Amino acid sequence: MRYSTNINTSERYEIPSDLDDSVRIRDFLHKNRGKRVIVVQGLGFVGAVMALVCANAFTEEYAVIGVDLADEHSFWKIRSLNDGLFPLVADDPNIPLFFEKSIEKGNFIATYDTAAYKHADIVIVDINLDVQKTSTQDGSLVDYDVDLGGFKKAIRTIGQNCKDEVLILIETTVPPGTTEFVARPILEEELNLRELSIKRYKLGHSYERVMPGPDYISSIREFPRVYSGVNEGSADAVQEFLETIIDISQCDLTRLEHTNATEMCKVLENSYRAMNISFAIEWSRFAEEAGVNLYAMVDAIRVRKTHANLMYPGIGVGGYCLTKDPLLASWAMKAHFKSDSNLNMSVNSVSMNDQMPRFAFERLEESFGSTQGLSIALLGVSYRGNVGDTRFSPVETVARLMQSKGAKLVFHDPYVRYWHEMDVHVEKDLDTVLNADIDIILIATGHREYTQDDVVAKLFKLKPCIIYDTIGLLTDAQISLLREKHEIGVLGRGDL
Amino acid sequence: MRYSTNINTSERYEIPSDLDDSVRIRDFLHKNRGKRVIVVQGLGFVGAVMALVCANAFTEEYAVIGVDLADEHSFWKIRSLNDGLFPLVADDPNIPLFFEKSIEKGNFIATYDTAAYKHADIVIVDINLDVQKTSTQDGSLVDYDVDLGGFKKAIRTIGQNCKDEVLILIETTVPPGTTEFVARPILEEELNLRELSIKRYKLGHSYERVMPGPDYISSIREFPRVYSGVNEGSADAVQEFLETIIDISQCDLTRLEHTNATEMCKVLENSYRAMNISFAIEWSRFAEEAGVNLYAMVDAIRVRKTHANLMYPGIGVGGYCLTKDPLLASWAMKAHFKSDSNLNMSVNSVSMNDQMPRFAFERLEESFGSTQGLSIALLGVSYRGNVGDTRFSPVETVARLMQSKGAKLVFHDPYVRYWHEMDVHVEKDLDTVLNADIDIILIATGHREYTQDDVVAKLFKLKPCIIYDTIGLLTDAQISLLREKHEIGVLGRGDL
Repeated sequence: MRYSTNINTSERYEIPSDLDDSVRIRDFLHKNRGKRVIVVQGLGFVGAVMALVCANAFTEEYAVIGVDLADEHSFWKIRSLNDGLFPLVADDPNIPLFFEKSIEKGNFIATYDTAAYKHADIVIVDINLDVQKTSTQDGSLVDYDVDLGGFKKAIRTIGQNCKDEVLILIETTVPPGTTEFVARPILEEELNLRELSIKRYKLGHSYERVMPGPDYISSIREFPRVYSGVNEGSADAVQEFLETIIDISQCDLTRLEHTNATEMCKVLENSYRAMNISFAIEWSRFAEEAGVNLYAMVDAIRVRKTHANLMYPGIGVGGYCLTKDPLLASWAMKAHFKSDSNLNMSVNSVSMNDQMPRFAFERLEESFGSTQGLSIALLGVSYRGNVGDTRFSPVETVARLMQSKGAKLVFHDPYVRYWHEMDVHVEKDLDTVLNADIDIILIATGHREYTQDDVVAKLFKLKPCIIYDTIGLLTDAQISLLREKHEIGVLGRGDL
Repeated sequence: MRYSTNINTSERYEIPSDLDDSVRIRDFLHKNRGKRVIVVQGLGFVGAVMALVCANAFTEEYAVIGVDLADEHSFWKIRSLNDGLFPLVADDPNIPLFFEKSIEKGNFIATYDTAAYKHADIVIVDINLDVQKTSTQDGSLVDYDVDLGGFKKAIRTIGQNCKDEVLILIETTVPPGTTEFVARPILEEELNLRELSIKRYKLGHSYERVMPGPDYISSIREFPRVYSGVNEGSADAVQEFLETIIDISQCDLTRLEHTNATEMCKVLENSYRAMNISFAIEWSRFAEEAGVNLYAMVDAIRVRKTHANLMYPGIGVGGYCLTKDPLLASWAMKAHFKSDSNLNMSVNSVSMNDQMPRFAFERLEESFGSTQGLSIALLGVSYRGNVGDTRFSPVETVARLMQSKGAKLVFHDPYVRYWHEMDVHVEKDLDTVLNADIDIILIATGHREYTQDDVVAKLFKLKPCIIYDTIGLLTDAQISLLREKHEIGVLGRGDL
């Protein structure tokens, strides 16, 4: 018997061995007859919310079926959705609102049965595509590879089931060239095997710019979009679909010449961000060694429009995208375009960013001594402020380094109850964490809660300890106050 | 007998052997008695205009003396200024206006006599500080060094002459740490030698963000400023001075904690720009190999505020700042702060940018064949659009490569008459260039003149040739039109 655990509720579901869900699908389609059917493949941070957006499209009523795998990582999402509990916790009030509406309308179910693809007018591919990194102990990148096995299998499943008149829209961030050189041949091979026409299907690529957090839904519906198709008919079909779910009165849809271009556009966009962060990291080291405050410099420089994207240094980069997208691009240059050159700068930025958590930890020990046996409170475990998303969080590296030194850790995060990568409980109540016998408080995530003066007042009241702000969240005034009693370290700041 | 040639008029001046200019200085000071005296050291692209700004300050009438060296590179600037001819050609109407006003008021002269420093209440240091690069033939950087000899000498000259109650404001872009670790000891040593107090002088650093071009003057007067002093009294003095020349109703003055910080801030600011450009270059290679249009992608991405600083690729980076400032920073880490680490990413961006002109040339030959013996018109020789500034112009590298292949070159630029780095005449009239028997037209600088439809109409009328747009200046519509008759190449664009 296999089980899948709901990471939000800890409820354990038995995974069925019989994957036939056709009765429920038939019932659903019967209730929703007359509507075009959208199947969303992958119910993760993008797919689940994309499905909600489709179930609440602006100009058309769709019947939406979310499909994911009946395995330990994903089955609970299917169950949770069908039980009326959205599988993501985020502080966007539109998420429960949209979910409730879809339940009322009865136009959204989830299933593990691949037969769902047979009924799709539109398939949206929102599965993960990971990069396998090999790194040294300090985090610097030695090698990386992309395994397209899972992606190919997912596309083949679609090709084995879909109608010949279907729009397949890939939203997954893929190595540039993947839609044309990988997905297209598989789809055509499978259509040919079933003796169906390969003239009628449409295939396109469009990437979301979803931002988990308070604007989760609107970051899909009210955000400019880039899209393309493998041919003009496909691009037209993608456009026609996007116009039903995006608020085009506010947001431009930009058609690029080819799927190669939109795929590259996505990884370029994220590589730009990754590089901006690594640039801040590089200069934060210089600022520390010269004993000057980098945050003040960045503030002074950002007044220029041409320099407004200059970023602050921090504990490192996390999340699903910036930690890998430059590698997808560089990998594709060789694998899909047989290039001799590569994207050295962009790849190095990943390596640089990956080293930052260890660097943050080492700076802490250099400045304040060994963490051996100390009690440490980590404020924030998410990789990003105001969001509960621990995927590839740099806090994990710092926490593991501290544990390896025998430090005793407690974790606080307003948005995370259970940190599954670390398999630990996370406190919601700040007092519970701060009341403990704490030697070091490490501010690790830029949650808005930690910037409030009453939190600083709480920190002030504690017995003297070390407060290490890894992301420059505290203001100069707050630092001055805390310094009266505590030792203060701020990463990238001369006064560490 | 030594001579110095005015690069704008070609007039040749004899350099005096007697450097005593005291009579003229005394007369000038007598006419301007009661005014505080500003001496601007260095009359280049920054110093000459800074002197104009000081002579036309907002809230105080200063007597301004510009000082430069009596050598072949600089003496002509002194003569030109004193003859009533401003030594810089720029299309900012404020430059002749401000210069005329200073002539009317009689509050601005230039001299080579270092005795000028004796009278200064304020000395502003605007001399050059170069980096010595060693590069391979393809332009990639092998090594670099900074020779502070000239800078030290200039500071020593001030220390040997100045009053003990003087404000010395360094505006030169220097390796971080230079004001504190280099200038300060020299000044104090010289004051001590003259048995003057070292308690009264003020020393600060503030960098301009001057942008040669149509807003030359206002890029100094109406632009936010960062400043600092080696101590609080110095910072106060710098602030008090800046408030007289900057429009503080519009622009913030930001005080940073120390001269180390403002010096770092400047090179950080320019390194950010250099890195953004090298990022665009890296991706332009990928875009070319994948055959997609990078310009369209950049347009699609820049709609995001967080990505607005993403840049277009081009023929390479030129000018005095971006080509060296990241190296000043990295050099300073070792030389002034004894650091083991360095600024690899920022240094690599210089190397990457330096390789771009050769890459642009090679792409041209790969796409259209050898340039051997061909007639080539280069449109634009300046390193930047709408400005006549050929310092470190990437067009020079391209031109030299073409010459080495035996190509016959003609040059056009609306802003440059004589290209002194290449020692060639530059045409002002586009028809003169285009009427020749041209095989290749290379658009090399983003002057607004080249974007006009009547220029494109002229290109269209030519006999069939190759038009190579290295900076993506032509619009899609213009390209479509020109393609009816000519072969078109656009760097960073798939349709090369």
